Amino acid sequence: MRVSYDEMYNALKERLLKYGANEKVAEGCAKNLTENSQGGVYSHGLNRFPRVIAMLKSGVIKPDNAPQLVQAMGAFEIWDGNQGMGNTNAEICMDRAIEMAKKNGVGCVALRNTNHWQRGGAFGIQAAKAGCVGICWTNTQPNMPAWGAKDRHIGNNPLVMCLPYKDEYVMVDGAMAQFSYGAIESARLEGRQLPVVGGYDQDGNLTTDPAAIEKTWRVLPIGFWKGSGFSIMMDMIGAALSDGKTVSDIGQQGNVPEDEYNLTQVFMAISMPDKQVQDAAVARVIEDIKSSQRVDEDREILYPCEKELDIYHENVKEGIPVNEKIWAQVLAL
Amino acid sequence: MRVSYDEMYNALKERLLKYGANEKVAEGCAKNLTENSQGGVYSHGLNRFPRVIAMLKSGVIKPDNAPQLVQAMGAFEIWDGNQGMGNTNAEICMDRAIEMAKKNGVGCVALRNTNHWQRGGAFGIQAAKAGCVGICWTNTQPNMPAWGAKDRHIGNNPLVMCLPYKDEYVMVDGAMAQFSYGAIESARLEGRQLPVVGGYDQDGNLTTDPAAIEKTWRVLPIGFWKGSGFSIMMDMIGAALSDGKTVSDIGQQGNVPEDEYNLTQVFMAISMPDKQVQDAAVARVIEDIKSSQRVDEDREILYPCEKELDIYHENVKEGIPVNEKIWAQVLAL
Repeated sequence: MRVSYDEMYNALKERLLKYGANEKVAEGCAKNLTENSQGGVYSHGLNRFPRVIAMLKSGVIKPDNAPQLVQAMGAFEIWDGNQGMGNTNAEICMDRAIEMAKKNGVGCVALRNTNHWQRGGAFGIQAAKAGCVGICWTNTQPNMPAWGAKDRHIGNNPLVMCLPYKDEYVMVDGAMAQFSYGAIESARLEGRQLPVVGGYDQDGNLTTDPAAIEKTWRVLPIGFWKGSGFSIMMDMIGAALSDGKTVSDIGQQGNVPEDEYNLTQVFMAISMPDKQVQDAAVARVIEDIKSSQRVDEDREILYPCEKELDIYHENVKEGIPVNEKIWAQVLAL
Repeated sequence: MRVSYDEMYNALKERLLKYGANEKVAEGCAKNLTENSQGGVYSHGLNRFPRVIAMLKSGVIKPDNAPQLVQAMGAFEIWDGNQGMGNTNAEICMDRAIEMAKKNGVGCVALRNTNHWQRGGAFGIQAAKAGCVGICWTNTQPNMPAWGAKDRHIGNNPLVMCLPYKDEYVMVDGAMAQFSYGAIESARLEGRQLPVVGGYDQDGNLTTDPAAIEKTWRVLPIGFWKGSGFSIMMDMIGAALSDGKTVSDIGQQGNVPEDEYNLTQVFMAISMPDKQVQDAAVARVIEDIKSSQRVDEDREILYPCEKELDIYHENVKEGIPVNEKIWAQVLAL
């Protein structure tokens, strides 16, 4: 089943208003979630909406609170999210980074006390649409063991890198875990093994079995010790710059998904000096990787985000696919 | 065998002068390589010196060329490395990013036509010593297949993130390949398997056998498709910002290590607003990860760079360990 952009946007906006968001936040949040679904990232679009409403109801998202400048140091600013809506807070902060980049070449915002930004890539795309490189990351609740550990003390802390290309962009929006818990759950429900090892079983062996990983919660960081290290660095840098909460601080709030609030994020934008140079450089890289010898003759080598852009174009044309059960659940809210 | 800092520094400086470097470049390059060895990164310290001399002799490193400002946009600048010495070029550019960060909160330099920076972490440490977060990366010659490909069209493009902590720092300096070719070769020479899968064998299966990976050159990106994506992004962003060479451009120069020149790098510094806040945030993270349940009871959970700092302290006290064969080879240059 597919629904139109307007249908989804209006349904989400209406319910956000009903649960206490003001007009501006309801519009921004609905736009972000609808675009995320339109962009093929259903897990952080419509499918995440019931959780947003639950967090509005429990009061950990305070939709009337706007983010606030704490300290300005030229092209770097510290903002406080005041526990406002995560995706609209993030949009405001990336906008501010872009504004500073337009003036100074580069801009950076460190944001504390914010909420889940949903699809981090949305803010990379926002920078790219403004003619900037966008780099941003968030911390999370503790959901991954540090390298050498069994229990979860670090976040999967997604890192986003995006740059404009022609009228679109090239982007990686990647968590530091090999797979999200959502992806692991989907594999289990569909009776699939993961395509590569995604964590450890109870005997401490690497496995592609999603159910075994769900039992241990020992998900695998990308690159083993390397992803663990990058996750820790992003957490430290964000909290140190913004005086915000670390993953460990967030863990003290509780460990169900609805306890994931007061997050810390970093947004950077760099103004692209020359559109022609930039498009030519990106085109050279794309052309070169596509000329690689394929592992599977029938599978083209893709550039980062190419598949998502194809889905986006299809969804713009055909409407946004929805899980009927979730769509009914959202309409009933 | 260990040698003193001064002994190594003087030996390297003397030879750099002999092979045409001016006083300033000889001092900066010798200092960087000696510090890298002192910091335990022997592969990018003394052990790399014969290659530096070979590249001076072949003329692809032009030691009299200083890096040059191309375009200034406030807190973001484009520099041209003019094929000068890589580690001294990088130090100058990170210094410039730090200077801009001190004035504007954040500073960024995109550098083109430079040479191998040796240990990327050196420039992260440089930023941390100046009270800044340091983030930097470089591209490389094509040395890793893109995800889905068999032959090498992307770089292992190391990413460095560093922040100050008390009188020292916490840092990750990680290439986008699970293992460097150097690490793979060492494992083969010592008759060891790699500790985790590091690439593919001739049948297309993941393997820990270093010799099998050396046959295919199919090294594994960290996180499979994710590390491949981040590598491509860093290459595109650097080349697009600086009008510099992409990994594919660099590949056209040739494919032996001595053909790895005219690299593109990005340096960012963010000024730390509050030393107390920063140290407290880092300490909370370290304390929390160290409280994890250990996989191996006897192995402490380490924070990023903790082991390297221990080696550094030992080497400061005891002298710098050298491979006797390489040390003799350097003295004979």
